[in-house]
Amino acid sequence: MKTAGIIGASGYTGGELLRLLLTRDDIELVQATSQRFLGLQLGHVHPNLRHLTDMRFTTDDELSKCDVLFCGLPHGTTMSRMNELLGASQHVIDLSADFRLNAPEQYEKWYGKPHAAPLLLERFAYGMPELHRQDIVDKGNAAAPGCIASSIILALHPFQALAGRVVVDAKIGSSAAGNTPTGSTHHPERHGVIRPYAPAGHRHQAEIEQETGIDVMLTAHAVEMVRGISSTIHIELNKEIEEKEIWSILRGAYKDEPFIRIVKSKKGVFRFPEPKILAGSNYCDIGFELDEAHGRLVLFSALDNLVKGAAGAAVQCMNLIFGIEEAKGLEFPGLHPV
Amino acid sequence: MKTAGIIGASGYTGGELLRLLLTRDDIELVQATSQRFLGLQLGHVHPNLRHLTDMRFTTDDELSKCDVLFCGLPHGTTMSRMNELLGASQHVIDLSADFRLNAPEQYEKWYGKPHAAPLLLERFAYGMPELHRQDIVDKGNAAAPGCIASSIILALHPFQALAGRVVVDAKIGSSAAGNTPTGSTHHPERHGVIRPYAPAGHRHQAEIEQETGIDVMLTAHAVEMVRGISSTIHIELNKEIEEKEIWSILRGAYKDEPFIRIVKSKKGVFRFPEPKILAGSNYCDIGFELDEAHGRLVLFSALDNLVKGAAGAAVQCMNLIFGIEEAKGLEFPGLHPV
Amino acid sequence: MKTAGIIGASGYTGGELLRLLLTRDDIELVQATSQRFLGLQLGHVHPNLRHLTDMRFTTDDELSKCDVLFCGLPHGTTMSRMNELLGASQHVIDLSADFRLNAPEQYEKWYGKPHAAPLLLERFAYGMPELHRQDIVDKGNAAAPGCIASSIILALHPFQALAGRVVVDAKIGSSAAGNTPTGSTHHPERHGVIRPYAPAGHRHQAEIEQETGIDVMLTAHAVEMVRGISSTIHIELNKEIEEKEIWSILRGAYKDEPFIRIVKSKKGVFRFPEPKILAGSNYCDIGFELDEAHGRLVLFSALDNLVKGAAGAAVQCMNLIFGIEEAKGLEFPGLHPV
Amino acid sequence: MKTAGIIGASGYTGGELLRLLLTRDDIELVQATSQRFLGLQLGHVHPNLRHLTDMRFTTDDELSKCDVLFCGLPHGTTMSRMNELLGASQHVIDLSADFRLNAPEQYEKWYGKPHAAPLLLERFAYGMPELHRQDIVDKGNAAAPGCIASSIILALHPFQALAGRVVVDAKIGSSAAGNTPTGSTHHPERHGVIRPYAPAGHRHQAEIEQETGIDVMLTAHAVEMVRGISSTIHIELNKEIEEKEIWSILRGAYKDEPFIRIVKSKKGVFRFPEPKILAGSNYCDIGFELDEAHGRLVLFSALDNLVKGAAGAAVQCMNLIFGIEEAKGLEFPGLHPV
Repeated sequence: MKTAGIIGASGYTGGELLRLLLTRDDIELVQATSQRFLGLQLGHVHPNLRHLTDMRFTTDDELSKCDVLFCGLPHGTTMSRMNELLGASQHVIDLSADFRLNAPEQYEKWYGKPHAAPLLLERFAYGMPELHRQDIVDKGNAAAPGCIASSIILALHPFQALAGRVVVDAKIGSSAAGNTPTGSTHHPERHGVIRPYAPAGHRHQAEIEQETGIDVMLTAHAVEMVRGISSTIHIELNKEIEEKEIWSILRGAYKDEPFIRIVKSKKGVFRFPEPKILAGSNYCDIGFELDEAHGRLVLFSALDNLVKGAAGAAVQCMNLIFGIEEAKGLEFPGLHPV
Repeated sequence: MKTAGIIGASGYTGGELLRLLLTRDDIELVQATSQRFLGLQLGHVHPNLRHLTDMRFTTDDELSKCDVLFCGLPHGTTMSRMNELLGASQHVIDLSADFRLNAPEQYEKWYGKPHAAPLLLERFAYGMPELHRQDIVDKGNAAAPGCIASSIILALHPFQALAGRVVVDAKIGSSAAGNTPTGSTHHPERHGVIRPYAPAGHRHQAEIEQETGIDVMLTAHAVEMVRGISSTIHIELNKEIEEKEIWSILRGAYKDEPFIRIVKSKKGVFRFPEPKILAGSNYCDIGFELDEAHGRLVLFSALDNLVKGAAGAAVQCMNLIFGIEEAKGLEFPGLHPV
Repeated sequence: MKTAGIIGASGYTGGELLRLLLTRDDIELVQATSQRFLGLQLGHVHPNLRHLTDMRFTTDDELSKCDVLFCGLPHGTTMSRMNELLGASQHVIDLSADFRLNAPEQYEKWYGKPHAAPLLLERFAYGMPELHRQDIVDKGNAAAPGCIASSIILALHPFQALAGRVVVDAKIGSSAAGNTPTGSTHHPERHGVIRPYAPAGHRHQAEIEQETGIDVMLTAHAVEMVRGISSTIHIELNKEIEEKEIWSILRGAYKDEPFIRIVKSKKGVFRFPEPKILAGSNYCDIGFELDEAHGRLVLFSALDNLVKGAAGAAVQCMNLIFGIEEAKGLEFPGLHPV
Repeated sequence: MKTAGIIGASGYTGGELLRLLLTRDDIELVQATSQRFLGLQLGHVHPNLRHLTDMRFTTDDELSKCDVLFCGLPHGTTMSRMNELLGASQHVIDLSADFRLNAPEQYEKWYGKPHAAPLLLERFAYGMPELHRQDIVDKGNAAAPGCIASSIILALHPFQALAGRVVVDAKIGSSAAGNTPTGSTHHPERHGVIRPYAPAGHRHQAEIEQETGIDVMLTAHAVEMVRGISSTIHIELNKEIEEKEIWSILRGAYKDEPFIRIVKSKKGVFRFPEPKILAGSNYCDIGFELDEAHGRLVLFSALDNLVKGAAGAAVQCMNLIFGIEEAKGLEFPGLHPV
């Protein structure tokens, strides 16, 4: 039995971590903090967990010792507390953006201020097992990738040698904006939208370039969905290629990966990846179409931003670090219809 | 290890049975039939199951022997094949309406034709463990209740002694109509509706009266949702009652039930039962409000029509019949946000 | 040419008034106030009006003289400013709840504080032309009815002589909660709900009793929709009645009304009233089903809460007061599909 | 008073034409045909029109003489009947794809069969007033552009001199698939999707190339929406350009156009074009972002596929041909919130 704590457990990512950990018998949750909902039961904020626990949110002023500490604090806050966190727990898995970029200069360039703990950066692996499995185990600490970045890197990575200019058109659900109400997330305003919210210069471009070497042109849209990301990746190919080679590249990269599926059918309703059937699951589905007339490869990538795009990836890292079966606790296959 | 078969496995209820059975290690699925999708892989129709199996739909002309046979054939078809089904399997759990009503006259009254196998009716328990746990075990065969009926009976049953006239206003998602496209389920027509589709005379009234003794007045509406039922039950009270007595009645009825939760909060966003956070789960959430000014008790009941309202209840019956832990395989707690 | 002003023009009702007035050539808008968006263009808040005007929100500290003043201030605020408003404009049409109830005791009972201007109550007609056309003209001032109340009164009023106990189950869109973001209107929380939000004791019961003499039992639910109300009204009949009599009662009440339609078809997809095809229109659609087995009449009533339930009713009153054709500016028939 | 007829009036485009024509006092509708709903009232299929007319669908075997005939027959059917149609009416406005491409070879290339009436092609203007106003008047017949093509051409046209490779990522509502139910439009399957349905080779590319000279790379997605198209157009710029030049180009092209709006704000919720507030309106909203880091211009274009993308454009052409004010009958500004 291992012990786990969650700092910042009242957010949507925190709730998803709780769901994934509270249903396990090999992990004991010892602490879940929230300054905003201090003293309330977890189920008050996460109603799906009502029956699973009577635990209450505590302050993060005092951290319980634990084997793994998940950190769901806001971007920019985490780095100034990381020394403390690393003291409280043998392993830290961070869900903020603070420890994703290896180079402090990159952090400053994209986030507009110097990194507060540049010397700790090298202690964190980029928490994408498909690319950094051994590094995650070796370092014992991981920074879970950004949700949009995950959907793009996983699809694009195998094709970096073939890629010229790459345009990415991402569509994302409302949960990605977090659980604080604003004018743009108010239901009458947010319902039914296709809303460009980051037309250029999205920060996840930095992670994508770090992991794939490609400086993608990303435009993100908020769409009518709570959970999920669908990224359409338009790659200008730098040489001619046949469809069977694309199959071969994808299978070569992912045939043994437990959470990557290649989805491309000629018939049926669900012929390409779609986020709706992935809600709650840890899968990233990847499909493609070759546009021979234009020398373009179109990749489609779908995942649940709160699972494979955050809490699920974090748990996958934890399993690796603890030497537990990597897919444990992440078996939920998703629903259909939904 | 027990073996299971599913007849009529390409429908939405069949898909949900597959999801619940394929993720278990104590049940071996030996057959899944579909006349319409004969020979295709299960994942072609149920895309969330793509990675779980390579099994293909077979014909139901030849039934494999198994320990339990789930029958998802259409209403009216099942009863004429039940003799055959009972021969192929030690236990049969039927998801149609054919074996829910104990009295053949009631069947004829509500379904407009004589029952084709009246002598087999007594071999089936009404598959609601909360009311008929022992009978399900004793008979070894069960008829899973109707989805709307389930939501109403579970809430109303404890209050039958107090109830005068009872009006039920039900709201239901589109998956309840099955997976055959029609004019009224076409997305542009079905999107965003609040559509009265059974304003009076709904057949589930028969089951409700059988189980609660109350001849409810049910009006059902199709609403914008794929999964889920929300029933609002307006009870004219035949005597004065205080709120604490209602709590007492509900706790008395359900405090040990694994899948019934009493949901009623003074604060927070999710103060009463809501179906959206139950998608995929086997919970039936029940809440209430006492309208003292009118001598009215309002019950709110929510569940997932495909799980607690169909496949989940069926699996719960199977667990009971096999003497397995009743909640096994039904642990998914639902998602939030969603 | 008549002049009009709107106090509190940045809310959803204010925006709808603007839409209905800015497209007319016989009404000149002279002022639109908003404390919150002071100085911004109207189109900043109401993006559908961007091209219609360059007007900006002004303060309501100084009111321009006008022929009609629409007041969209919050409940409880209006009454303390009504003397001033009546001084600024020949006619006032109020959209708050402050002048709907004729008796100040009723106001105090339902709103929990004494009415601030009880002597002004008699100067306001209840702004429902179908019931009070002449009174609206005579008084020259009107209080637009509550949105849920409108949907119920219009359907129920013709049947008051037949009604015993009346249960109303209302479903309402998110725009009814106004345009201020809260935890319960945050998209990830509000999306896809069927959420009981006023299980008993809804204040609109007061208006309904005043206008129909019936003390209805109202339970209101928030549902997945931005605009629209659907009320299902379950009437215990105090005598036997045939369907043709119901038709006769409805036609007698409404055959000459420009904005009431009787909707009840045996075939087709839209057999009963549905709010989605009424978005933007001033119609109230009314349908019914007779449940002879239970001596119950079920009425279905649908309208757009921002139009017939607020701004449209207000404009209809204005037309009457000015002696303009009653339906002028309210011709938009609604969209299908939508 | 001019007379109008509609062939194929039971489809969604036909219904929208009816809505736009039945509310006018200068156009008399003399015929609306439907083979499928022959003899039924128009309101049976188009419930928003119930109160506007008692007219019934007739057969198209006999065409009434009229001043303008709108043709809503399926693609491929229209061309074989065009001789007949041109005989029945002085002016024909076609809503199919049959007369959009000027060159019969292009038709054959994209639609896979020879054009049935190549000699008639030159009698039709491409029905986009912003580009072909005089030609529409001169020829007196028009082919309304494809809905996705409209959204792209209107945004892209002013930038053809600057454009290198152009990727278009389009998102479209369910009404674009027409009113015939299929497996992929069944509500439980279609709800909440982001579904790539035309990943490459979309036929509208032919129109776009004809009108802009650019061979765009188009990928289309079905999204959760009934009406509306949002096209995100990623242009590789062939030279450096500043934001003010882009403003200048757009204003130069569209400042006098009644139905094109430039939408780009620094603040507020609706900062870029969004289709939801355009439902029912004839506007095409165009916005942009300059991605200087990549030499990329991102255009956002939104419209209602059934109005500016079909019936509204057709009525705009009719107004031009008849010498009526171009915007007449197309004044509906759209709704907010919605």
